[in-house]
Amino acid sequence: MPMDNNDLFNKHQSLRITNVQLNGRPTEVLVDEQGLIAGIGERVGESAEFTLDGNGGMIMPGLVNTHTHAAMTLLRGYADDMVLQEWLSQKIWPLEAHLTGSDVYWGTKLACLEMIRTGTTTFNDMYFFMQDAARAVGEMGLRADLSYGFIDLSSPDKREQEIKATETLVRDIRSMGNPRIRPAVGPHAVYTVSPEGLSWCAGFAAEQKTGIHIHVSETKTEVEDCMKAHGMRPPALLDRCGVLTHRTVAAHGCWLDAGECRLFASRGVSVSHNPASNMKLAVGRAMPYPDLAGAGVNVSLGTDGCASNNNLDLLEEAKTAALLQKFAWDSPTVLPAPEAVRMATRNGAKALGIPSGAVETGRPADLIIISARDVCNTPCHNLESNMVYACSGNAVSTTICDGRVLMHDGHVPGADEVITGARKASSDLVARAREA
Amino acid sequence: MPMDNNDLFNKHQSLRITNVQLNGRPTEVLVDEQGLIAGIGERVGESAEFTLDGNGGMIMPGLVNTHTHAAMTLLRGYADDMVLQEWLSQKIWPLEAHLTGSDVYWGTKLACLEMIRTGTTTFNDMYFFMQDAARAVGEMGLRADLSYGFIDLSSPDKREQEIKATETLVRDIRSMGNPRIRPAVGPHAVYTVSPEGLSWCAGFAAEQKTGIHIHVSETKTEVEDCMKAHGMRPPALLDRCGVLTHRTVAAHGCWLDAGECRLFASRGVSVSHNPASNMKLAVGRAMPYPDLAGAGVNVSLGTDGCASNNNLDLLEEAKTAALLQKFAWDSPTVLPAPEAVRMATRNGAKALGIPSGAVETGRPADLIIISARDVCNTPCHNLESNMVYACSGNAVSTTICDGRVLMHDGHVPGADEVITGARKASSDLVARAREA
Repeated sequence: MPMDNNDLFNKHQSLRITNVQLNGRPTEVLVDEQGLIAGIGERVGESAEFTLDGNGGMIMPGLVNTHTHAAMTLLRGYADDMVLQEWLSQKIWPLEAHLTGSDVYWGTKLACLEMIRTGTTTFNDMYFFMQDAARAVGEMGLRADLSYGFIDLSSPDKREQEIKATETLVRDIRSMGNPRIRPAVGPHAVYTVSPEGLSWCAGFAAEQKTGIHIHVSETKTEVEDCMKAHGMRPPALLDRCGVLTHRTVAAHGCWLDAGECRLFASRGVSVSHNPASNMKLAVGRAMPYPDLAGAGVNVSLGTDGCASNNNLDLLEEAKTAALLQKFAWDSPTVLPAPEAVRMATRNGAKALGIPSGAVETGRPADLIIISARDVCNTPCHNLESNMVYACSGNAVSTTICDGRVLMHDGHVPGADEVITGARKASSDLVARAREA
Repeated sequence: MPMDNNDLFNKHQSLRITNVQLNGRPTEVLVDEQGLIAGIGERVGESAEFTLDGNGGMIMPGLVNTHTHAAMTLLRGYADDMVLQEWLSQKIWPLEAHLTGSDVYWGTKLACLEMIRTGTTTFNDMYFFMQDAARAVGEMGLRADLSYGFIDLSSPDKREQEIKATETLVRDIRSMGNPRIRPAVGPHAVYTVSPEGLSWCAGFAAEQKTGIHIHVSETKTEVEDCMKAHGMRPPALLDRCGVLTHRTVAAHGCWLDAGECRLFASRGVSVSHNPASNMKLAVGRAMPYPDLAGAGVNVSLGTDGCASNNNLDLLEEAKTAALLQKFAWDSPTVLPAPEAVRMATRNGAKALGIPSGAVETGRPADLIIISARDVCNTPCHNLESNMVYACSGNAVSTTICDGRVLMHDGHVPGADEVITGARKASSDLVARAREA
């Protein structure tokens, strides 16, 4: 089947994936017209409509990025190496003030292209103009939980606006009727949302049965300011407002203490580890993975946005996580490769409550194929070690989400148009900000 | 010019590189038959034998990896996530005991392939069977300083063997008459080489005018053991033995104190920063970049060997360096992107005393082209930021060393044979070790 056969791409069909390895053994995988894995083994899909040759690569669950701001791809490299507050107030916020829905559409398309290329099939996103983000995700074929960044700054008027924006987003996304795209509720953080706002978000998410996506204890300043303002640390405040649930993904969590790790475990909160962002912004402490894992918290992986990373490569992030955890907690045995792979796959799916994250019959066909002939897989003493420590997302040759082929042999249909559109949106955005 | 035109590859010729950007401006570069940059500007090389289309990419100096053990690619992923001493004594050393010259040849070829793909044109290597490594480097077309890892363990007999091995290597490499491949002297470290051995290495390197390649203050244990054995810290011992010179590359340097940074500056020693290895092995402290840079020490970048990284991607290493330095020294302004790029290019060339490291007329044509259409360069607000924080070595489309084209448009002639040969060498090595 030639690479330019666009019949293969982005649609439901019965699909036989041949010539792949699973757990070190050669096999085939059959995907059905509903986008589910219908069979695994030799000759499972001889009657399938399409056959996709895996070229001997390793088939794995698609990666799940549990914390990002996808459209910030437009700000990649716009400002770096600055003190957090200056970086935000002098560079990021002034540019974001000029963002339009069209920018978010193009930025999210670029993010989706980057995620498809690097093996991510699902992401958890928080930003603005999320209806436009949803349109981009729908076109690109990924799975996403999309939340509007709810920021009331303790103003009742602003709170009313944010409530309306959140309600509208949930309604608009549900009206799309795309099962891959779900709304979530996104109270930004304890320093940007009042307790009243937090409580409303918790109640609305429970009523609507959506996820909750929030930044928690990213910096020491956040913890200290919360103590000053509310007499308690962020997790206690969030718990009082009902935000800590089994549908909640808490991003960062660098300054959680041991008791807070146990609280998160008891509430079923998942924590999204964002090591590259935390190091780049020098937040001063690594997420306490040993305490979280010891308490039984589900820990997943996120890239954060491209202004503070500056890419969306989740395999690169897995390496950074495995390295940072060893360095920060002074032990080379912390976060071994198999656990890092699990964070990027199964734990991510669990954090978002979706049934993918494993290559098993009956699960959604969210699948990637890692090239076996890549230098990073030569030799292959241990696939999980190679995935985490040697390969980047560039080793991904094929990406399938919901049974739809989004990339095969490195080819993503329409990639050039996305790059051209995003480049134009980004330079227009900077020009508008300069003129203002 | 078609990609399979092997006339283009790995030979001296006059070469016109068109359609590239330098410092943000479109230009052309002319390379002459001696492998030097003969001109930069519009239409500089209209009479050249070959024309190479840069596809609008960014032309940069080739990267310089100042600390690696190239043939350890064969051990990639063989053992990870272990305590250093157990990892060495139970896994790495038992396997290395079965290494042959042929293994080192194939491991070094694989390393060269990986470096060519990721934009490294020069490396500083220390290992065993270095005549076989030299043969591999010669065939692959890179530039390298090769040293035999001198380890006498305080035994006079062993010392005599190591002296002979070092003398033989210097003679053998010089007899190859390949100006791209130079011998260096490689006293392994203060905990594996006696003061007598160190002094001999220093004297021989001075006499032969070669570089010195040594591990220095990688772990706290190394510093403490040196204090116990010699009553002084590693830099003082090395200085007493004459090892600290302007031809010396000290790898790691994690546990250097402020006075030692000043000592290195006064002696002209270069330090090779190996952040991924240091984090993976949890050495407990980051190389003190602010102190070293403040003292005026030339700091370059190295990947270390593939058993402790586990790849040779120097752009990935530049990101890890920029992130680790910020995190470890608690400031997001430490090691900004332009300095990280300089470490990977100009500072590396300076560490080895070679005139490459910049795109300037008269310098060796050690050049790479970074793809402008890659997602990691979209948008391109700042090329140096993208190179360090967004791109990996995968964004490199073309690699030229000494004026010879080693990769163009991602194509390296003979890559498949190298992968097949290295894979076989690696599995044979593991089989021999299992049978023993």
